[in-house]
Order: sequence, then C-alpha cells, then structure tokens
Amino acid sequence: MTPPTRFVDTYLLYLMARASSVASAEFHDEVRAQGVSIPVWRVLASLKGAPDGLTVGELTRSCLANQPAISKTVDKLVAQGLVDRHADPNDRRRVWVRLTAAGEERVDGLIARAEAHQARLIAAIGPEEAEILKAALKRVIDRAP
Amino acid sequence: MTPPTRFVDTYLLYLMARASSVASAEFHDEVRAQGVSIPVWRVLASLKGAPDGLTVGELTRSCLANQPAISKTVDKLVAQGLVDRHADPNDRRRVWVRLTAAGEERVDGLIARAEAHQARLIAAIGPEEAEILKAALKRVIDRAP
Repeated sequence: MTPPTRFVDTYLLYLMARASSVASAEFHDEVRAQGVSIPVWRVLASLKGAPDGLTVGELTRSCLANQPAISKTVDKLVAQGLVDRHADPNDRRRVWVRLTAAGEERVDGLIARAEAHQARLIAAIGPEEAEILKAALKRVIDRAP
Repeated sequence: MTPPTRFVDTYLLYLMARASSVASAEFHDEVRAQGVSIPVWRVLASLKGAPDGLTVGELTRSCLANQPAISKTVDKLVAQGLVDRHADPNDRRRVWVRLTAAGEERVDGLIARAEAHQARLIAAIGPEEAEILKAALKRVIDRAP
C-alpha cells in the first residue's frame, strides 16, 4: 500500500491528472464499445452547442490534440458526413468545422451516455462539491494564456 | 470566440482534462528548463515520501504510464544513482523502487519549484476552493477500481 504521506497525495497537479485519467478511462471504455474512437468523440463533443462551429485551432485546444491529428480526424468525419468544413469568408486560411444534422444525431446519443456517466460521478463526489469542483477547474482553465 | 453554451463547458470530464493539461503544461516547461524530462519528474515525485519505495505496478498507476515506459525510466535513474531497485523478499517477481540519498536531493529541488507553482495556482483558485477541489479529486480517484 502507498502511505498517505507521499508528496503527490496532496499535490494539485497530480490529483488533477490522476482524477482526469481514472474518470476518463471509465467513460472512454463506454465510447469505444459504441465503435467510436476517443479523438472522434472529442471532436464531436467539442462541436456540440457551437452553432457556427469551431476553427481548427479551437478544436486543437478543446480536444487536447495537435493540429495534424485534428485535421486527420476531421477528414474522417467529413467523409462520414458527420461534420462539414468551410473557409472563413474574411480569412481564407481560417477553417471552420461544424456538425451536420447527422453529426448532431450521432453526438446526441454519445452525450446522453456522457451525462449518465457524469451523473454517477457527481453523485459519488456530492452535488455541491461537484459545482465547486467545476468552478475551480474553470478558474484553472481561464488562467491559462 | 467559443459560445458559453457548448456541451463541454459544463462537462466534468472535459473540465478535468483541460484544467490538468493547462496547469501541467505551465509547470512542465519549468521542469524541462531544469534539464529533467516529465517521465523522470513523475517517477521521482511519486517516490517522495514513500520510504519503502513503490512497486513498478504502483509507479505505473502513479505516473499514468505503462510498464515498459516506467521500466525504461527506472533503468535510467538507477544508472544515474537516483533510485535503487530491489526484489521483494517474499515475492521475487515484485520489484520495489526507492529514492537514493542523491535522488532525495534531486527531487527536493524540483518539489520546491512544484510547491511554488502550486501556491500560485491555489492563490488564483482561492485557498478554500482549492481544498474542496483536492478533496473532490481524491474522491474521484478513490472511486476507481
């Protein structure tokens, strides 16, 4: 057994990385069981609720991936008819990616599962603590350059 | 700009992954500037405060890495005299890894930097919220099988 006095046991960066890893691993098993890869899930989930879509740059940040990986996933999703891609009318180098109607339908099914998983997680943490947890995580994210 | 109504903006698994990524990225730059790789930092930090050391299996979970990657990093640290490795007297297949005196010295310098970075992060979040954040993250971790 790991003794409770280890440095990492109270180290915030460790606790965030470990909690993120264990919680995501649980849900990622569920995503893969639906025949959906994690990069595809991340792109579709990131686009949900963004009616104008996101730029490729925004997708790379949202999906914690690099641009070549995002471009490859977007190519695949365009071929499947789940997203479309269009150049910014004011800046041809900026490319926007948006869910199609078929993409909305696909992501809604996955989001229903994500929300059920999240509800179990929040029940385990405690609903009030979960709200504070989310607010604190948002503050960490907004602090980033 | 990303509208505030996106699904991921209130999705706990996304907030954990993104907050972990942005906060770690900041500190990891500081670790690399010390000439230390992230896998080395994670192994040394995980061993701090574990006087008997950790098994390779415990290190893989603590460092969010797979066993071949941990074994490679441990080999390097043994060669540098920063950790030692010994078989469990009761189970020869279990290998323990422990900081040497030189390893303790090396990790203490890095931990001083980690604590300074953490103090800045906690000041940004708010000290009370940070305590609730840590407790909630621990609950997520302890929930894992």
